Amino acid sequence: MRFAVLGGDMRQVELARLLERDGHQVRRFAMEEAGGTPARCAGGLEEAVSGAETVILPVPAMRGEYLNAPLSRERITADELAGALVPGQAVLCGMPGEALSAALARRGVTCTDYFVREELTVKNAAATAEGAVEILLREMPVTLQGARVLVTGFGRIGKLLSLKLRALGAHVTCSARKPGDLALIECLGLTPVPTGELRGRLSGFSAVVNTVPALLLDRELLGELDEGCLCLDLASKPGGVDMEAARELGVRAIWALGLPGRVAPVTAGEAVRDAVYNIINESV
Amino acid sequence: MRFAVLGGDMRQVELARLLERDGHQVRRFAMEEAGGTPARCAGGLEEAVSGAETVILPVPAMRGEYLNAPLSRERITADELAGALVPGQAVLCGMPGEALSAALARRGVTCTDYFVREELTVKNAAATAEGAVEILLREMPVTLQGARVLVTGFGRIGKLLSLKLRALGAHVTCSARKPGDLALIECLGLTPVPTGELRGRLSGFSAVVNTVPALLLDRELLGELDEGCLCLDLASKPGGVDMEAARELGVRAIWALGLPGRVAPVTAGEAVRDAVYNIINESV
Amino acid sequence: MRFAVLGGDMRQVELARLLERDGHQVRRFAMEEAGGTPARCAGGLEEAVSGAETVILPVPAMRGEYLNAPLSRERITADELAGALVPGQAVLCGMPGEALSAALARRGVTCTDYFVREELTVKNAAATAEGAVEILLREMPVTLQGARVLVTGFGRIGKLLSLKLRALGAHVTCSARKPGDLALIECLGLTPVPTGELRGRLSGFSAVVNTVPALLLDRELLGELDEGCLCLDLASKPGGVDMEAARELGVRAIWALGLPGRVAPVTAGEAVRDAVYNIINESV
Amino acid sequence: MRFAVLGGDMRQVELARLLERDGHQVRRFAMEEAGGTPARCAGGLEEAVSGAETVILPVPAMRGEYLNAPLSRERITADELAGALVPGQAVLCGMPGEALSAALARRGVTCTDYFVREELTVKNAAATAEGAVEILLREMPVTLQGARVLVTGFGRIGKLLSLKLRALGAHVTCSARKPGDLALIECLGLTPVPTGELRGRLSGFSAVVNTVPALLLDRELLGELDEGCLCLDLASKPGGVDMEAARELGVRAIWALGLPGRVAPVTAGEAVRDAVYNIINESV
Repeated sequence: MRFAVLGGDMRQVELARLLERDGHQVRRFAMEEAGGTPARCAGGLEEAVSGAETVILPVPAMRGEYLNAPLSRERITADELAGALVPGQAVLCGMPGEALSAALARRGVTCTDYFVREELTVKNAAATAEGAVEILLREMPVTLQGARVLVTGFGRIGKLLSLKLRALGAHVTCSARKPGDLALIECLGLTPVPTGELRGRLSGFSAVVNTVPALLLDRELLGELDEGCLCLDLASKPGGVDMEAARELGVRAIWALGLPGRVAPVTAGEAVRDAVYNIINESV
Repeated sequence: MRFAVLGGDMRQVELARLLERDGHQVRRFAMEEAGGTPARCAGGLEEAVSGAETVILPVPAMRGEYLNAPLSRERITADELAGALVPGQAVLCGMPGEALSAALARRGVTCTDYFVREELTVKNAAATAEGAVEILLREMPVTLQGARVLVTGFGRIGKLLSLKLRALGAHVTCSARKPGDLALIECLGLTPVPTGELRGRLSGFSAVVNTVPALLLDRELLGELDEGCLCLDLASKPGGVDMEAARELGVRAIWALGLPGRVAPVTAGEAVRDAVYNIINESV
Repeated sequence: MRFAVLGGDMRQVELARLLERDGHQVRRFAMEEAGGTPARCAGGLEEAVSGAETVILPVPAMRGEYLNAPLSRERITADELAGALVPGQAVLCGMPGEALSAALARRGVTCTDYFVREELTVKNAAATAEGAVEILLREMPVTLQGARVLVTGFGRIGKLLSLKLRALGAHVTCSARKPGDLALIECLGLTPVPTGELRGRLSGFSAVVNTVPALLLDRELLGELDEGCLCLDLASKPGGVDMEAARELGVRAIWALGLPGRVAPVTAGEAVRDAVYNIINESV
Repeated sequence: MRFAVLGGDMRQVELARLLERDGHQVRRFAMEEAGGTPARCAGGLEEAVSGAETVILPVPAMRGEYLNAPLSRERITADELAGALVPGQAVLCGMPGEALSAALARRGVTCTDYFVREELTVKNAAATAEGAVEILLREMPVTLQGARVLVTGFGRIGKLLSLKLRALGAHVTCSARKPGDLALIECLGLTPVPTGELRGRLSGFSAVVNTVPALLLDRELLGELDEGCLCLDLASKPGGVDMEAARELGVRAIWALGLPGRVAPVTAGEAVRDAVYNIINESV
């Protein structure tokens, strides 16, 4: 098969390499500053996508008006991108957003969001959990072994992170809303606390990790944290920690986004590749 | 509060004891052969339920036409049970079935199925998983440490059991249908295999544990098992193993039902009690 | 090679089978009630050992005056055994004891104790730990998940058992004497308690497992246990639990010996086989 | 009690803080660049040690001719240090070395090496293992989950690190020399390989971590590593990796020393404090 791989971070760079290794023809574009890998990037956008059955964009596909391309100086709009494609080509991307979706639709190009694929979000959650463990190991002045850590939210990331922290010997408390989740938390050897009852129970932790994408750790809760307690937010925008209040209260707070591409670009690239293959196979 | 606790196995006996310990008035009926605990069972059905705000039946509530009461010689039909109750009393039970539901409705008695509560099914799954580990430890001539075990199905029981087996050092393969589940299996350190691709891959296991309540391990799959491989079915009726084929092929197969009440009656009783309290609190 | 495998439990039976499977010539004796396996036991002791380079006895080799042979009606003394052998033959056995060692020495037959081999004691410890988990799962009315368990002694069995219990979600307290062991207990996610400070700290446990082969759980300590707490002794004779006091105090106490051969005869047989091969290779 | 805490890294800074928090009088010296904590360092060496019953030096106590004091501009020789002390004062330090020991002995000052205390080396090993996990998470382009990692050496650090890596889902191979250790490796769910048989088996790993303080990973073994395999050396000097060969072969190699003080200064300081208290209590 012929692929064009455009934009993105090291995860996208690895994706291109992996597709090539599987025997496919791959053209890269808008990742010219990746270094390391031979600079086989095609000359221009038109040449890169020409002849490709499948064009793969990063996640998120766009940053504001332009293609999300942190490893490139190219600035490509949704319309420029759509204009370079021809009907019949398939675009696979993560979280396309309205502008890109509309531009591609006008052009008669199908657009599939691979980021909704469960197999990909699970693997991203696992990589995100590892990245969070790395940050905690680096930033905490105590060992995780024996430390008390609170994880707010018990979705994919919360689950996998809590299990990893417990495996490393931390005493992990997890918050959740549903009675069923609270029961599962207990059955996994973690300490449950209903989300609605967090108030008054935030002292004694060496770190708090939020995974809920809604303002959960507000000024009042942050004020309860012990001095020196690390506050790590893994939630996508708008995030779950009141960063301004944290600054004012002297709480050390870190907002970590895009961890999979940063901590494990090869694994993250493999996860995108597998989702891409699954999408192509299912569409046959 | 005043409770009547009727029928059931040791789990129900423990439930009665736990409610009493919490300060409630409890009358027992149809569990007179439980032993151990003082025989405070009330004289008859009418006396047992008289004055009780809440009447708790076991799971399943009925066995055929009669109240499910393996620790009793009483044989009580749905109509007799309903007839002893008065409108305003609440019945909490597991899987009431049509006949009992209808009889209670005719009598103006509300009936709530606690067995659909997620917090209960999760805890039952955990107890079932422990029971399965016990059976495997007892029946396998090799240690779980280092053994290869296949778990079919990745629902609550499949997940918790697989994690426990892995924690004990087994090499665990899990089958599932959805790509997302297969990814999660991998991220939990287990080996995934799509349910549709089990055929031809069943050799090399010391034990196979089924959790899927539909005929999965048919004659053909059973025929692939190594000599001496143990086949444990945890699925509720109709079960997932062709027991007749197993017998004919000389496969050692065990169908284990009702494990929570058998292996951990106190924990299982606590789980029912917590669900009962949650139901009562939510109905206020 | 030619082996004679004499006496012992199912572990010894499996050992014979495994040696045969590896292509060696094996004669069995004094295990005629094992069943299952084809009755290829030789006619008499002389025939069984005749021509064998290596004669393998069980662990312990003797029970009182006779060869340890629970699966046989034969009663063979140390002198009868030695008398059937010729100088140049090698005897491998576990814990020969003085009488047998002396009898073999008089006969000019070398005798090597395989039970002192670290690789065997480690594997026996692992199998013993699994057997203990099985007993706890079977006998405790609560799940191990969430239960508080005390393990006394932090040798091989104590270590492996504690890790398995923790892996299954129990809160595990371990006693040890040395500061280094207490530190390791903490670093493994377990709660340390100095052996000398057990007094006054035995309440709150659902089970206590002793691994120390000296009277540790005396009447006073047993008296501190909660009602219903299970007391499991894994220590070889003289054991570490005052069984008479336990009976009088109404403490449910179980003394489990010879677990490897009972719970995992195949794995235990493999461990003996590996030690036998190592001994033979090192003696070349 | 009155303590003087001299030199060292952040671990020593934390030690001083912890002793103070326990109610002791503490004077600091030669750690003036630590920052953060209030600069309560005493004016000079004489003033710092004057009146202190116990003087605590870092581990190692000396770097070349001078007190090991990376957070200070002071350069203090063994003789200057000894000269400031008076008979009856006790020096506690890690790995004093000959020159310091001799100088203190001449002065009539007792010197105790806390670094030989098992409870300290175990906790340092645990902190080192966490530090190694952090480095692997940061430097590997794949997740630890699912990665193949080789750990050479099965001492304290090797054991704890291997268990942590396995807990995070890595497939861990461990090398050791003794049959007993190889059996334990297997019983802990790791893959054993005899140290003498490493040759020819080093491909397929994403990372290799050495814990053996002797040249183990020589040019030939390094040459077997897959492209991109990370080589992490945790062994104290002289280290176990031929760093020059690594450079020439293009193997990415990292030599990480002093991890406890860097990754978990508070926990590492607590471990020293506990050892200090144990030494003082035992000497009473």
